[in-house]
Amino acid sequence: MSKKDIKKRFGLAIKHRRQELELSQEELAFRSGLHRTYISDIERGFRNPSLENIQKLAFALNISMSDLFANYGVESDE
Amino acid sequence: MSKKDIKKRFGLAIKHRRQELELSQEELAFRSGLHRTYISDIERGFRNPSLENIQKLAFALNISMSDLFANYGVESDE
Repeated sequence: MSKKDIKKRFGLAIKHRRQELELSQEELAFRSGLHRTYISDIERGFRNPSLENIQKLAFALNISMSDLFANYGVESDE
Repeated sequence: MSKKDIKKRFGLAIKHRRQELELSQEELAFRSGLHRTYISDIERGFRNPSLENIQKLAFALNISMSDLFANYGVESDE
């Protein structure tokens, strides 16, 4: 399993899913209870989010964590 | 999606998978590069692991993060 920077991959997955739902970073921040700048940092791969924050993001993006990891290139090159 | 304590669920999943592979906590610690007491805390739901540590654990347990989340009761009652 490739260990390419997981933070970057995760950030791209969040951005991809957010855009799919046509949400702004502000709306995702509001839904997830996280700060907008944190969302921006996540999407640029600058953060190493905790399990609880991953759950908040997935919940706000209306997707399971397993689907988010499996279907948005987090663990494999899509 | 139930928000039952995700840390507890994740800990039980790690323990379940580790026992499936008949690994001790020491062996999982060695494989993952994490400390044994950290593994013990994770399995008891006392830790809120980061994305990178989740990846290390999944990699050491020879499973994808998506499978770990999907098939070991992390996100739903098995």
